[in-house]
Amino acid sequence: MIVSLPESMAAAGFEAPGGPEVLRIERLPVPVPGPDEVLVRVAYAGVNRPDVIQRQGFYPPPPGASPIPGLEIAGEVVALGAGATPELLGQQVCALVSGGGYAEYCLAHAEHCLPVPDGLPLDMAAALPETLFTVWHNVFERGWAKEGETLLVHGGTSGIGSMACLLGKAFGLTVIVTCGGADKCAAALKIGADHAIDYKAQDFVAEVAAITGGKGVELVLDMVAGDYVMRNLKCLADDGRHVTIAVQGGVRAEINMAEVMRRRLTLTGSTLRPRSAQFKALLTQEIARLAWPLVEAGRLRPVMDRTFALADAAAAHARMEQGAHIGKIVLEVGGAG
Amino acid sequence: MIVSLPESMAAAGFEAPGGPEVLRIERLPVPVPGPDEVLVRVAYAGVNRPDVIQRQGFYPPPPGASPIPGLEIAGEVVALGAGATPELLGQQVCALVSGGGYAEYCLAHAEHCLPVPDGLPLDMAAALPETLFTVWHNVFERGWAKEGETLLVHGGTSGIGSMACLLGKAFGLTVIVTCGGADKCAAALKIGADHAIDYKAQDFVAEVAAITGGKGVELVLDMVAGDYVMRNLKCLADDGRHVTIAVQGGVRAEINMAEVMRRRLTLTGSTLRPRSAQFKALLTQEIARLAWPLVEAGRLRPVMDRTFALADAAAAHARMEQGAHIGKIVLEVGGAG
Repeated sequence: MIVSLPESMAAAGFEAPGGPEVLRIERLPVPVPGPDEVLVRVAYAGVNRPDVIQRQGFYPPPPGASPIPGLEIAGEVVALGAGATPELLGQQVCALVSGGGYAEYCLAHAEHCLPVPDGLPLDMAAALPETLFTVWHNVFERGWAKEGETLLVHGGTSGIGSMACLLGKAFGLTVIVTCGGADKCAAALKIGADHAIDYKAQDFVAEVAAITGGKGVELVLDMVAGDYVMRNLKCLADDGRHVTIAVQGGVRAEINMAEVMRRRLTLTGSTLRPRSAQFKALLTQEIARLAWPLVEAGRLRPVMDRTFALADAAAAHARMEQGAHIGKIVLEVGGAG
Repeated sequence: MIVSLPESMAAAGFEAPGGPEVLRIERLPVPVPGPDEVLVRVAYAGVNRPDVIQRQGFYPPPPGASPIPGLEIAGEVVALGAGATPELLGQQVCALVSGGGYAEYCLAHAEHCLPVPDGLPLDMAAALPETLFTVWHNVFERGWAKEGETLLVHGGTSGIGSMACLLGKAFGLTVIVTCGGADKCAAALKIGADHAIDYKAQDFVAEVAAITGGKGVELVLDMVAGDYVMRNLKCLADDGRHVTIAVQGGVRAEINMAEVMRRRLTLTGSTLRPRSAQFKALLTQEIARLAWPLVEAGRLRPVMDRTFALADAAAAHARMEQGAHIGKIVLEVGGAG
């Protein structure tokens, strides 16, 4: 297969941080894959909260990453860097990328690509990597979740929240989510949550106690931090784990260390983007082995909110900031064809 | 071997919480071993910080435990409960006990006993279990310490601190301690610490950064909590672990959750006393297999501060509260004879 590559491409970037409106189409050179990299002609790119924070100027890309937002893509591999597996050329893949997803072409590490199985639309494929990798690592690896345990997730209808429901249920967890409003609670239950608590109407600490018969949950996947942390810890069973993956409610948390000690609680957290290529390759391998079979079998599909054209990236960000979305927002770049 | 047991015994207890002076000798019935328990004629009993807190009224014994203080003993097994290994009768053992150590006779779970090897004096044997079990579990199991890593311990000359030095060095860790004053720093270096920081004269955060070339330590064994926690976290390397085993500086800690997340820090902690008999039996087995050979070979000996008679338990507590001790304080009960 010979693909003729253009020299320049459209990408949605920004010159200076600001509101969604700073995102606009620019022309950039098509990137050239380095060692172990592939070039993907992007069909769809997922939109994630870190993209929004990057655009706001609070989350600069790590050294070496593209300044263009976009942490996950799906599309066709059209060029290989030195050392990249030849079989990848011409394959449809989805991949976690360190940036640059909002563009017609994007570099991915060859070992961070997962094959798009038959029957998985490319928009859905682009919506999988960031939440799947994040939830997998933080819930199962960092959080040691195991069959029969109960997981509490805030924001049950967000991209991360919906993936936590789906993966949690697929691997035998009981999933409790919190959402803002009855509509979102209904949506979360439809996605698969066992229990949905409307945090605007109910005290989630009391509700979790009632649901678990006073025992508490084994794991909290925390995207809020701030003053939620103390309340989250009250939701934990003895020996419970608290894994923070975002700090939307503020970074300062007050913690009772006697409670941590007496009840043997564990607090940790992580962010995926700055991890080494080697770490991400190992994580990709584990996901390929343990979670991807569910995708191949059609049993794991991301919850899709809405698709925007690449040129409408600003509108996509505005929708995410507004918070009314349920599931994943994606950008159509080259599209399925 | 037939041992004639008296009906009553001397024990050092207290009627109401208070200062060291509330401890006084009382006469109590000699306890009768239940299933899987042994009765030990106590030669020496270790004195630990939790005993002091219990006497102050802030750490009530767990359900079923003796109201008499004392969490570790050494002596001879003189009676067996149903199911206890017959070979234990007549053996000299040391044991972690759930209370009641400050007495002529004390019950121990048969599976929580370790044999006293030839050459280990009984006062030293009595000084081992509490700190050995606590440090082992929290540094190696809960804290995942491994060869080549660096451990920071506050209170490097305390019973726990000195054991952390000894065990850390025996298992290939670099050990940094903090102590209050140059004398204690000198003592800690003599015990085996690689570096001792006088926290009264120096900022331990800056010193740890200097010692580790800015990298930080992989593990903090925290006995202070309170406002030390934020400073401890600054001492941690990326992926570092913070294990709290006491809260002498207060229970409230403010934590930067973004730092926890970004640097993948882990905070946890535990207390040994309320753990199940089964957990303690498993911990005893692991220690018997991995740490006890060092004791048998004469390579691991507790740092001994001073021995008090059982009748002088009040003076022993006063010494611990004064904080001038270096290493372990023990009570002589039956003595070596």
